[in-house]
Amino acid sequence: MRLLEERILKDGTAVNEDILRVDTFINHQVDPELMQKCAKDFASHFKGMGITKIVTIESSGISPALLTAIEMGLKLVILKKQPSKVLNDDLYQTMITSFTKGTNYELTMSKGVISEKDHVLIIDDFLANGECATGAIRLIRMAHATIAGVGVLIEKNFQPGRSKLTDAGFEVYALARIESMSRDNIIFS
Amino acid sequence: MRLLEERILKDGTAVNEDILRVDTFINHQVDPELMQKCAKDFASHFKGMGITKIVTIESSGISPALLTAIEMGLKLVILKKQPSKVLNDDLYQTMITSFTKGTNYELTMSKGVISEKDHVLIIDDFLANGECATGAIRLIRMAHATIAGVGVLIEKNFQPGRSKLTDAGFEVYALARIESMSRDNIIFS
Repeated sequence: MRLLEERILKDGTAVNEDILRVDTFINHQVDPELMQKCAKDFASHFKGMGITKIVTIESSGISPALLTAIEMGLKLVILKKQPSKVLNDDLYQTMITSFTKGTNYELTMSKGVISEKDHVLIIDDFLANGECATGAIRLIRMAHATIAGVGVLIEKNFQPGRSKLTDAGFEVYALARIESMSRDNIIFS
Repeated sequence: MRLLEERILKDGTAVNEDILRVDTFINHQVDPELMQKCAKDFASHFKGMGITKIVTIESSGISPALLTAIEMGLKLVILKKQPSKVLNDDLYQTMITSFTKGTNYELTMSKGVISEKDHVLIIDDFLANGECATGAIRLIRMAHATIAGVGVLIEKNFQPGRSKLTDAGFEVYALARIESMSRDNIIFS
């Protein structure tokens, strides 16, 4: 998506070869107009696939996911991060190890918000190592639902997230794919 | 707002006299249509006040705040929670003590996303003890911006959040005001 790539070049900051800051328009300050255009693109790409629910992971994915849910006339489920395992029979839980941030947390979803009748689209801000997306997929499968695909605003194409997902048979759709980065230099695929 | 009160009665769960679960339509699963109607109500109430930016606290306030930002044609700033103080000259930080959850965290905002020219509307899901809202106000004031008011979906009227804010001169607008709760019984003001 040209518009998002141009905005990343204009307002994003490649801190180093791994870290891209998009704090002024996606993560910390949100440009709602840009997010609406991204959501329209997701909705158009995934239309006609029988999707029944949008799922995202708190908190940076919420904005694009909510607007995609509105575009598609669907409800949104926000998967929650907990610092440690909670003893609760009403929750599905799975451990996420974030190599990027060097942290562990439990991703959780209440039983009942998604059922075996659901066909789910996962929307998030970034795809890098794919820990979040694969964790979300584990939770959705615990609820016996099926997965239509994964849509992300920005993919770091030089990290293994996409191949982990496509190797497992999931479609990945990224609005901006970064081939490589270095300080103040961003190259798209 | 009648619609939100009715939805709370239908789908909310008063766990005890303090805890209201709204997981199926606000916090965990989000009903975008309901959130859009709430956002229209906020936008209508706060129109013509010269508001330049919407501010919320991650993560449950993001949905109503983003849609209010869209209704009002403004950008959204999401204040971030950090487990501990970060050494960073580019951040404003303030400690929040949540009596409800028994936790401490640092609320943070990058310098530059809000300036002394801004007149800010704070939107959140709940107002109870007011720790989050007063913390957000401290950060906004560190940036020398002014505050137009605080809009929340649900106010626990039996807790001191509103009086803390109104005593300090801030307008509070709540779409549903709960006078009292007990297991399976919710009374609105």
